[in-house]
Amino acid sequence: MARSDLSLEELRTYRPQVAEPDDFDAFWDATLSEARGHDLDLRLSPVEHPFTSVDIRDIRFSGFGGDPVSGWLITPTASDGPLPVVVEYIGYGGGRDLPGQHLQWANAGFAHLLMDTRGQGSSWGTGGATPDPHGSVPHTPGVMTMGIDDPATYYYRRLFTDAVRATEAARQLPGVDAATISVNGISQGGGVSLAVAGLVPDLTAVMPDVPFLCHFRRAVDICDRDPYTEITRYLSVHRNNAETVFSTLSYFDGVNFAKRAESRALFSVALMDTICPPSTVMAAYHSYAAEKSVEVYEFNDHEGGAYRQRLRQIRWLKDLLAR
Amino acid sequence: MARSDLSLEELRTYRPQVAEPDDFDAFWDATLSEARGHDLDLRLSPVEHPFTSVDIRDIRFSGFGGDPVSGWLITPTASDGPLPVVVEYIGYGGGRDLPGQHLQWANAGFAHLLMDTRGQGSSWGTGGATPDPHGSVPHTPGVMTMGIDDPATYYYRRLFTDAVRATEAARQLPGVDAATISVNGISQGGGVSLAVAGLVPDLTAVMPDVPFLCHFRRAVDICDRDPYTEITRYLSVHRNNAETVFSTLSYFDGVNFAKRAESRALFSVALMDTICPPSTVMAAYHSYAAEKSVEVYEFNDHEGGAYRQRLRQIRWLKDLLAR
Amino acid sequence: MARSDLSLEELRTYRPQVAEPDDFDAFWDATLSEARGHDLDLRLSPVEHPFTSVDIRDIRFSGFGGDPVSGWLITPTASDGPLPVVVEYIGYGGGRDLPGQHLQWANAGFAHLLMDTRGQGSSWGTGGATPDPHGSVPHTPGVMTMGIDDPATYYYRRLFTDAVRATEAARQLPGVDAATISVNGISQGGGVSLAVAGLVPDLTAVMPDVPFLCHFRRAVDICDRDPYTEITRYLSVHRNNAETVFSTLSYFDGVNFAKRAESRALFSVALMDTICPPSTVMAAYHSYAAEKSVEVYEFNDHEGGAYRQRLRQIRWLKDLLAR
Amino acid sequence: MARSDLSLEELRTYRPQVAEPDDFDAFWDATLSEARGHDLDLRLSPVEHPFTSVDIRDIRFSGFGGDPVSGWLITPTASDGPLPVVVEYIGYGGGRDLPGQHLQWANAGFAHLLMDTRGQGSSWGTGGATPDPHGSVPHTPGVMTMGIDDPATYYYRRLFTDAVRATEAARQLPGVDAATISVNGISQGGGVSLAVAGLVPDLTAVMPDVPFLCHFRRAVDICDRDPYTEITRYLSVHRNNAETVFSTLSYFDGVNFAKRAESRALFSVALMDTICPPSTVMAAYHSYAAEKSVEVYEFNDHEGGAYRQRLRQIRWLKDLLAR
Amino acid sequence: MARSDLSLEELRTYRPQVAEPDDFDAFWDATLSEARGHDLDLRLSPVEHPFTSVDIRDIRFSGFGGDPVSGWLITPTASDGPLPVVVEYIGYGGGRDLPGQHLQWANAGFAHLLMDTRGQGSSWGTGGATPDPHGSVPHTPGVMTMGIDDPATYYYRRLFTDAVRATEAARQLPGVDAATISVNGISQGGGVSLAVAGLVPDLTAVMPDVPFLCHFRRAVDICDRDPYTEITRYLSVHRNNAETVFSTLSYFDGVNFAKRAESRALFSVALMDTICPPSTVMAAYHSYAAEKSVEVYEFNDHEGGAYRQRLRQIRWLKDLLAR
Amino acid sequence: MARSDLSLEELRTYRPQVAEPDDFDAFWDATLSEARGHDLDLRLSPVEHPFTSVDIRDIRFSGFGGDPVSGWLITPTASDGPLPVVVEYIGYGGGRDLPGQHLQWANAGFAHLLMDTRGQGSSWGTGGATPDPHGSVPHTPGVMTMGIDDPATYYYRRLFTDAVRATEAARQLPGVDAATISVNGISQGGGVSLAVAGLVPDLTAVMPDVPFLCHFRRAVDICDRDPYTEITRYLSVHRNNAETVFSTLSYFDGVNFAKRAESRALFSVALMDTICPPSTVMAAYHSYAAEKSVEVYEFNDHEGGAYRQRLRQIRWLKDLLAR
Repeated sequence: MARSDLSLEELRTYRPQVAEPDDFDAFWDATLSEARGHDLDLRLSPVEHPFTSVDIRDIRFSGFGGDPVSGWLITPTASDGPLPVVVEYIGYGGGRDLPGQHLQWANAGFAHLLMDTRGQGSSWGTGGATPDPHGSVPHTPGVMTMGIDDPATYYYRRLFTDAVRATEAARQLPGVDAATISVNGISQGGGVSLAVAGLVPDLTAVMPDVPFLCHFRRAVDICDRDPYTEITRYLSVHRNNAETVFSTLSYFDGVNFAKRAESRALFSVALMDTICPPSTVMAAYHSYAAEKSVEVYEFNDHEGGAYRQRLRQIRWLKDLLAR
Repeated sequence: MARSDLSLEELRTYRPQVAEPDDFDAFWDATLSEARGHDLDLRLSPVEHPFTSVDIRDIRFSGFGGDPVSGWLITPTASDGPLPVVVEYIGYGGGRDLPGQHLQWANAGFAHLLMDTRGQGSSWGTGGATPDPHGSVPHTPGVMTMGIDDPATYYYRRLFTDAVRATEAARQLPGVDAATISVNGISQGGGVSLAVAGLVPDLTAVMPDVPFLCHFRRAVDICDRDPYTEITRYLSVHRNNAETVFSTLSYFDGVNFAKRAESRALFSVALMDTICPPSTVMAAYHSYAAEKSVEVYEFNDHEGGAYRQRLRQIRWLKDLLAR
Repeated sequence: MARSDLSLEELRTYRPQVAEPDDFDAFWDATLSEARGHDLDLRLSPVEHPFTSVDIRDIRFSGFGGDPVSGWLITPTASDGPLPVVVEYIGYGGGRDLPGQHLQWANAGFAHLLMDTRGQGSSWGTGGATPDPHGSVPHTPGVMTMGIDDPATYYYRRLFTDAVRATEAARQLPGVDAATISVNGISQGGGVSLAVAGLVPDLTAVMPDVPFLCHFRRAVDICDRDPYTEITRYLSVHRNNAETVFSTLSYFDGVNFAKRAESRALFSVALMDTICPPSTVMAAYHSYAAEKSVEVYEFNDHEGGAYRQRLRQIRWLKDLLAR
Repeated sequence: MARSDLSLEELRTYRPQVAEPDDFDAFWDATLSEARGHDLDLRLSPVEHPFTSVDIRDIRFSGFGGDPVSGWLITPTASDGPLPVVVEYIGYGGGRDLPGQHLQWANAGFAHLLMDTRGQGSSWGTGGATPDPHGSVPHTPGVMTMGIDDPATYYYRRLFTDAVRATEAARQLPGVDAATISVNGISQGGGVSLAVAGLVPDLTAVMPDVPFLCHFRRAVDICDRDPYTEITRYLSVHRNNAETVFSTLSYFDGVNFAKRAESRALFSVALMDTICPPSTVMAAYHSYAAEKSVEVYEFNDHEGGAYRQRLRQIRWLKDLLAR
Repeated sequence: MARSDLSLEELRTYRPQVAEPDDFDAFWDATLSEARGHDLDLRLSPVEHPFTSVDIRDIRFSGFGGDPVSGWLITPTASDGPLPVVVEYIGYGGGRDLPGQHLQWANAGFAHLLMDTRGQGSSWGTGGATPDPHGSVPHTPGVMTMGIDDPATYYYRRLFTDAVRATEAARQLPGVDAATISVNGISQGGGVSLAVAGLVPDLTAVMPDVPFLCHFRRAVDICDRDPYTEITRYLSVHRNNAETVFSTLSYFDGVNFAKRAESRALFSVALMDTICPPSTVMAAYHSYAAEKSVEVYEFNDHEGGAYRQRLRQIRWLKDLLAR
Repeated sequence: MARSDLSLEELRTYRPQVAEPDDFDAFWDATLSEARGHDLDLRLSPVEHPFTSVDIRDIRFSGFGGDPVSGWLITPTASDGPLPVVVEYIGYGGGRDLPGQHLQWANAGFAHLLMDTRGQGSSWGTGGATPDPHGSVPHTPGVMTMGIDDPATYYYRRLFTDAVRATEAARQLPGVDAATISVNGISQGGGVSLAVAGLVPDLTAVMPDVPFLCHFRRAVDICDRDPYTEITRYLSVHRNNAETVFSTLSYFDGVNFAKRAESRALFSVALMDTICPPSTVMAAYHSYAAEKSVEVYEFNDHEGGAYRQRLRQIRWLKDLLAR
C-alpha cells in the first residue's frame, strides 16, 4: 500500500481536458424522454424481517426501457413529519443484499431507497434481484464493455437511466418530503451519483464516495485493476476499436456530468486508491459546477473513509437540512 | 505445476455418479425443435485475405432463437472431390479471430468450419463477431452463471444449440461431403463437442481436447480457477441456490451427453490441468458410449498436448477416413 | 476457491482427540477469581452520534487484571420492558469501530454490548480503544504467540477473561433483562464466544460464527494463512518449543470449552474456509455439550454466511425467547 | 495491465544515448568471417506430415563455430516461379516446434525458413532440436548471462551468427528468389531480426515484432520481468561486474544494429509491454537508419498485435514486392 | 526487480526537509538520564558451544526502564592486547540467534557484542531471548506502531535506549579497549546504529547497512512493503491520527539523528531496495554531520551488499584503526 | 505454511519402490575411472582476507573431464595435530561466495573444504568461480535438464564426479587427517552428499541437510516449485520423453546412492518443505544402508533447521570423533 498516482499537491490543481461529445445533452434528453415514456409503475410490498426500529419494503419501479428495477425502502419506525430521502446506488458487482443489511440512513432519520443494480449482485454480499434483459455484442466478462461500440447500447445508459428514475420514484413515496432528495453511493455507486447530479437539477445533496466511472481515458492508462481493466482487456483484443470505445465512454464520463451539476456535493477520495485512482476522482471534483467539498483519505486504498465517511455524510446532510 | 487431482491409476477407473434429470432428452428435443423452426439461413461471403493456399469465407447461419451466428469457412485452394468437414468450437472467452489465424485443418485437406461463440471473443486473441442478444438475471461476470436459475434461460442452452446447427450448416456447404462431419474443440470447445456428440447421432468423429463443462459438481468442489469458480462465486453469494444451480447444470453436463454418444471419439486429458481437472474429463470419457480413445498428457496443465494433439487428431481422422 | 479440508460427509463424523490439561478447570477458576477480585467498575457515558432510532453509550468495565475494557452499548430508542442482551466479540485485528457501525441487534430489539478487543483494532475497520498493558517475551507480530510459553502469560487468558467479565457487566446494565444474556461473534469473536460458553453456565444462547481458536494442533498442520500461521512461524524459529506451545494452547482450545458448555448454541461453518478450516470448527461443534445446530455454507470461504447468518441468528434467538 | 513506461508522446521523441564500443564493426566482421570459414553444409530432408497444401522439410546448416543449426522449410505445394523467402527467428525459450505449427507465411506464398534457436526450445511450445555445444562460466539460469564476461563467449554472439548464416542458407534454397530475403520474429526473434538487419546489407525487409535485446542499460533499470531480469539477478550477485557486463552487452544491443541497417523495416511496439518495455523498442526504432514504420499497440502487453501484426506484415511485404 | 525510487543521479543530490521537533534533544536527554538512573548491572555468563577459535558468553545488562537486555559476546580465543569492540544491532523480527551463528567480527580480531532486540526474534532465524515488558494501545501487528500516539510510549524509545546502553556496557567489558567502540547493523540494525550515532558522541565508527527508520514521511508515501506499511495500515484505520503519528516519528527519524552525528560513518544503500527505499537512506546519508562514505549497490534489493559489505566494513574499520 | 506432504506417521514407514538401472554401478565405475584418468592437479593459493582466527586458501583440483574445480579451504589458525576434514557442497544456484562467509566448521576445529559448483553461483549469495565447459541439447533454464536425454551427458554426472574428486583432494591436503573425511551440504549440497556417500566407501560421516535430488518420480508428481519443476516444464514441452528422462534420472537418484552407503549419516528433514518434499527425503533416509539418524523439523519449510542443524552436526561429529 503506497501512493501510485499524483501527490496531494498535484491533485489540488489537477484539471485535465476530458473529451465531451457535441450531442451529450441531446443524447441524454432523448434517453430520459424515452424512459419517461414508460409508466413509472411504482410498487411497494411488505417484507418479512425481524427488525423493530425500521420498516423495510420491497420497492419496484420501471427503469430504462420500462424494465422493472428493484430496491429496498428502509424507513424509521418512529418519525414525525415527512422524511427526507436518500437514494443510494451500489458498488460494482453488488446487489441490494438481504433486507436490513444497511440501516444507518434510516436510523439517522431518513427514508433510504437502496436501488438494486440491473444484472449485478452476484460477485459479493448477499445478492441482487434485478435482471438486465438486454443482450450484447462480444464483451469482456463484466459490464464495463457490454454494448460499448455504441452509446445507445452501452450498459451504463441503462443503469444511469434507472438511477434517474429512482429519484423520480423517491418523490412519489408515501410519507416523504419530495423536495428533499439526495443521492449517494460508493465507487460505482458514486459514479452513478455523479451521473444523476448531472441529469437531475434539483437535488438536495450529492455524496459520491471514491467514485468510479470518471476520466476513463486516464483510468485505462494508469489503473491495473478491475473493473477499469475490463476496458483495457477489451482494447487489447479489439485493437483498432479505441476511438469508438472512448467515444462511447465520453457520454458516460463523470467529469462531463460534474460540469452540469447544480446541487451541493460532498466527495471523498483516497490517495492510495488502486481501483478508482485519485486523479480520476479529482478530475471530476474540480469540474463539479456547484458548491462542493471533499474528504481526503491519505492512507487508504479503495476502502476510503468507509464508515467514517458515512458518519461524515450523515452529519453533513443533517447540518444542511437544519439550515 | 504438480498433480493435484487423482493419480493416473485412480483416473483409469474413475466412474462417478453424475446427476441426470428425467427430462434430459425431452428438454433437448424441444430445444432443438424450436431452433429448427427457424430457417437455417446459411450465408457465405468472400473475405479479403492475403493467402493463396486456402479460401476463407465468412459464414453465417441461424442458431438458437434464430439468432445469427458467425464463423469462418476455410478450405484448401486445391482439392479434388468433396471435402470432409471439421467443425471446430472455441475455448472460453475467445472468438473466431481474424481470418487465417487457424490453418491446419484446411492445409490437411479438410473444409474447416470455425464457429464463433455468441457473446464471447473479447478476452484473448483477435476477436469475435457474434452477439448474444439475450439478457440475464444477476450473474457473476462471465457466462457460466448467465440465466442459471432455469435450464431454459441458461447460456449454454443457446451455445449448444448453435453448435448443433453448425453441423447442420456444415452438411449444406458447397463442395463438401455431407456424410463426413466431425467436431472438435479445446476446453470449452471440447465441452461443446461432447454436447454435440450427445445430440447429433451420425458424426464421423468427435475430438474433445481437455474438455470443459464436465461433472460440474466435482469441478466446483476441487477446482479453484476460473471459469468453474464463476459458479462457486455465484453460490457464495446466492447461498441457498445450490440445488437450483446444480439442477440446471445437470442438463448441460458433458457426462450426460457422453452417455448418449454414438460416434467415434478421440479425447485428450492433462493430468496437471488446474482449469479442467482430469477427473472431470475422465468422468466424461468413461461414460462415453461409443468407441473411444484418450491421449494422456502427464505433465501438462490446461495447455494439454497443444499442437501435438492437433497433429494427432489430423492423423487419427485421416486414418479413420482412409479405412 | 475450492474445498481443501474434509468433505461434508467426513465432517459430519469428525470427532478428533484434542489434548486437555488436567488442571484446565483449576486454571480458569483461579483466573476468573483473580479477575473478580477487581471491582467491575462499570461506567456508561453518552456518545455524540447522529442516530435517532438507537441510543449509543460508551461502556467501560474492568477486565483481566482490573484493566479497563471499552465497548459500545447500543439500544433501541423505543422499547417496552427490559431488553434481552447480546454481547458481541470482534474478529482478529478489529476494534469496536466508530459508534453506529453495527446496528442490527439493536434494531431487532436487543441491548447490544459490543466489546472492544484489548490491544487490537488497528488492522481494519475504523479502530479500537482498549490498550493491552502487558508486555511479552519475543513473539511473532500479532497476538497469537504473545506470552505463549506459559498459560499464565498467554494473551488469550486476558481476552477470554475480559469476555467473561463483559457478560457480568451485561447483567448490571440499566433496562435489561439480566437473565437473558447471549453471546456471539465472528471468527475470533466466535472463538471467544465458545470460551465464554465453557466458562459461564447460564447463558441464553451462544452463536459462534465460523469460529477461530479451535483444535490448534490440526489448524497449524493444515492451515497456511494468518492468524493460525503466526503459531507456525513461531515454531519455525523456536524449533524445540512445540511441546510447550501446544501445552499452553490446550488451555485455550475451543474444543475444550465446548465440552463444558451448558447453553444452546447456533454455529456456522464454511466448507471452503481457508482461515478457520471447517474441520477445526466441526471438532468444536461435535464436542459441544449442550443443544446445538449448525448452518453449513458449502461454497464460502471465511466470509461464511455473512449477513445471511446474522439474520438467521436474530430469527433463531427471537424464536428461542418467544418460547 | 496499465502503462508503466513512457507515454506515447514521450516515446515519439525518445532518442537516448546508447553505448557503442569502438570495435563493434571489427568484432562482427571477425565473428562472421570465422563462421563463414566453415562450410555452410546446407541439408534438406523430407519430413513426415499430414498436410497437402504445404511441403515441409527439415533444414540443417552450419552456424557459429560450424555447429549444426536446424529449422523447418515450409513452402506452398502450389506455386509458380521462384518464391520470396521469409526467415523467422523464435521467441525466448521456444523452439521450431513440431512441423506444421506455423503455416501463415507459406500459405501466403512465401518460402518460410523457421530457424531453431540453439540450446532453447524447452520452456514452451512443442520443442526445439538444436544443441548449443558451448559451456559457460557461472550464470543465472537462462542464456542472458551465459558467457557475459566477454563478448567473445557471450551466447548471443553464437545466435546472431546462426541467424546471419540462415539468410545465407535461404539464398541457396531450391526454388526461391535469392534476391528477395526478408527476416522477422517476435520478441527475441525481433531482436535477432534487428541484429541481422545490421549485419546483412541487402535484405528485402525486416519485421521486428515487439523486439527484445534493445537498450539493455535502460531495460535492466526499469524492467522487472524475465528475461531482462536474468541480467539484474546476475549483477545482484556479481556486484562489481556491471562495467564488464554492460560493455559486453554493447556489442549486442539492437540500437547499435539499427544504426547500421540498410533495409526497409516494419516494427511493432506495445505500450503496456512489461517484458520488452516500449522505450527500449522505440530507442531502436528511432535509431533505425533505413526506411521504417511502426505499428503501435496502445493497450497490449508483450503479446502486442499478435496475429493482427502477422497479417499486417504479410500485406505490407506483399505490397512491397508488388511495387 | 527494477529501480522504483529515484535514480542514482537524483539520489546524489537528494536533501529533503524532514520535520524535527523543537524538544528533540531534551526528549532524548531525559530518556537517557532516566535509563542511566538504573544500574547497568552488566553480567557475563559462560555458554556451552563447540567452537575452539572463539569464546562466546551470554551478556545481560539493564536497558530502558532497567529492563534486562540480552546478547552474545563473541571474542577470538587468541588475542594480544585489549580488543576493539563492535556492537551490532539486529534486523526487524530477528533475535540474537543461537550462539556462534555470527563469527566474522570475532574472527577478524574484534570483541563482538551482538545485542538482542526486545520483544523481537520470532520471525526468522533461530530466536531471541529478550522480553519487552511494556504493553500498548491498539496497534497493527509488529512493533512499528506500538505506543505510537506518544513519543514517551513508542517502542523505539525503548530499543534506542537499550542500544545506547549497549555501548556503555561495551566499555565495561573485560579485555577490551573502551576507547574503541563501533556500532553497526543491517536494516533495523542500521537504523538503530544511526540513532546511537546521534546520541553517543565518541564512537570510533558507525556502519549503517541499508538502514531502516529514516524519513518516515516519504517511506510511508512510496514504500508498499512491511515493515513501513505497518504505519500505513495503522493510518488507514486511524484516519485522523496522521499528525500525531508523524509527530511521534519525528523523534525517531534517522535523518534527525544523522544531523547530530560526530563519528566517522560507512553507509550502504541498494538502489532497488523495496523495503528501505534508497531515497530514505540517502536522506539520512546527506544529513550525516561527520565524515562519511557510502557503498552503492545498484542492482540489489534489500539484501544490499550482504557479505560483500561485511567484508568492506571489516577492512574499512581495520584501516581506520591502523591509522 | 502448512504441511502438504505425508504426515509424520506416514513418513516413518514410507519406503517406496524407486527405479534403479541394472548398470548403475558400472556406469559410475566407468565415470569415476575416467575422471581419475586425469591428474588431480591439486593447487592451493593464498587469499587476501582480514581474518586472524582462520586461514583461507583458494583450492583448485581437476574434476569431471579434468575440468578445473574451485573452492575455499578454511582452517583454524591455531591447531595442534592433523585436522579432520569436512567437505561441503552448496545449494542450487549458489557459489562458494567470497572468502570468509562460512566460518563455523573451521572455528569448530575442522579443515573445511567448501567446493564450488560448476556453472552455478549467480542466483544468490556473493558468487561462484567454476565454469562448466560443456554445452547441451535444448533444456529448460537451469541445470536440472541439461543433457537429460542421456546419463552420459547429464549435468549431475559432472557435478557428482567433481564431488567425489573433492574428497580425494581432501585427503591430500597438508595438515589434515586423511582418514577422517566427512561430507555435508544443504539441499542440492545434501543431494550431492548422498551421491558421494554411495560412491566413496570410507567416509567418517555424511550429513545431508534437507537433501534435494531424491525420488525424482515422486518429486515431479507432487512438487510445484523450482528446481524440481524444471523437469516438469521440460516434460510439458517434450511430451513423449518421460521414459528417457526418468531413465536418466535413475542413475542420479539419492535413493539409489543411499542403498550403497557405508558411512554413518545424520539427515535432516522439514515437514513443511515445499522445495524438497519430506517424502522424497525420507525415501532416501529409509534406504540408507548404514547407521543413521534424522532430525525432524516439523514446522519448517525448506530452511529446515538452518543454523540449529549446523550446531547439531558439529556436536554430533565431534562426539563421533571423540569415541
